[in-house]
Amino acid sequence: MPQKKAVVLASGGLDSTTTLAIARSEGYACYALTFLYGQRHRRETEAAEKVCASLGVVEQRVVKIDLAAFGGSALTDTRIEVPKDRDPRSDGMEIPVTYVPARNTIFLSYGLAWAEVLGAFDLFIGVNSTDYSGYPDCRAEFVAAYEAMANLATAAAVEGRGRYRIHTPIITMTKAEIIRTGTRLGVDYALTHSCYDPDAEGRSCGRCDSCRLRLKGFAEAGLTDPVVYVSPGR
Amino acid sequence: MPQKKAVVLASGGLDSTTTLAIARSEGYACYALTFLYGQRHRRETEAAEKVCASLGVVEQRVVKIDLAAFGGSALTDTRIEVPKDRDPRSDGMEIPVTYVPARNTIFLSYGLAWAEVLGAFDLFIGVNSTDYSGYPDCRAEFVAAYEAMANLATAAAVEGRGRYRIHTPIITMTKAEIIRTGTRLGVDYALTHSCYDPDAEGRSCGRCDSCRLRLKGFAEAGLTDPVVYVSPGR
Repeated sequence: MPQKKAVVLASGGLDSTTTLAIARSEGYACYALTFLYGQRHRRETEAAEKVCASLGVVEQRVVKIDLAAFGGSALTDTRIEVPKDRDPRSDGMEIPVTYVPARNTIFLSYGLAWAEVLGAFDLFIGVNSTDYSGYPDCRAEFVAAYEAMANLATAAAVEGRGRYRIHTPIITMTKAEIIRTGTRLGVDYALTHSCYDPDAEGRSCGRCDSCRLRLKGFAEAGLTDPVVYVSPGR
Repeated sequence: MPQKKAVVLASGGLDSTTTLAIARSEGYACYALTFLYGQRHRRETEAAEKVCASLGVVEQRVVKIDLAAFGGSALTDTRIEVPKDRDPRSDGMEIPVTYVPARNTIFLSYGLAWAEVLGAFDLFIGVNSTDYSGYPDCRAEFVAAYEAMANLATAAAVEGRGRYRIHTPIITMTKAEIIRTGTRLGVDYALTHSCYDPDAEGRSCGRCDSCRLRLKGFAEAGLTDPVVYVSPGR
């Protein structure tokens, strides 16, 4: 029997890299999909390429998408400041300015298109709702609704060739659990990148929400984060 | 009270142009979203610009998306031939090679992102399931599932600022009814473009499924199609 194919959304960050390692450990032939969007984060797609190579994906595609055209987020709109030195946990119920409108909806839709062309029915996305619940499109309710829609949207599903499943293996894990899981599966976190606001040399700021969550996760897992920081937290 | 905003997907074709005219007639301030995808159809986005100008949209955005990267359709993959001289009605239950994987899912997702940034909660899409039921993402079941998902995906909906509604005003109309409705609302169909396979001068082939459906619609409506054809049907 040929190996089952899966499309895995791979940003080069800690969560999606761990998700990719989990998909591989479950025996899937992984097709990695990386998005280049907005002005920030070119560093992240470089990380995605290294990560995908190290985890033996069958193929990686990098798709440039123009989310900056719509604005509305600190991650795509340079006029909005990336927040620094916040306590991510205390701020967890608000939707942060780093929210990108409909981002995971758009990402999954490209993933669905590629899956249909590949004849894959499994999609993996590294959403996580535990540490940081501010993003509506990281919740299980959203993922379930997306899956139901996908099974009505596509020829492959409507013709009965299969049923799409959106896998979210890390959705209820803490950052420490994610890091421990990835470490057990052989992820080299030195290749990953999480910072929302790296400096010109690509070093992580250590102060944005994403860096702070990451550093806290490594501390709680009893491990040392191998990436280079300008200013490693407070 | 300010005019309510709507995002309208506007391809420059007959269906989406009529949908735009309907949205305007219902009193919406219309924000038109046009996609440039694949290798074919540059002619169509030129039509979309003329149509949007003639129907007084507040703003039009043209977003380039790379559906050709995934292949799998005669509309984005030049290696697949556009079928000619078929009877669209007899072939209506099969999914045609002009199907683009997850196309409307991707289009609506960009529309949702822009709507969220604009503070709009109404999206219009000119899907039609009567004349030609081969596309799974043109059916009411798909649209309802998309709407449910959209209301879980976005900060605007989750925070209770509104509920997204996907309007499909022509979904059950015949082509003749669509053309009569648009004509009554002042649409200039000479500005629209429907052909899947225009020649170098932008003239419609008259023989692909889209041309044949269009010509049949005008004939049934008792009207003459004002666009220029190389070979106006058989």
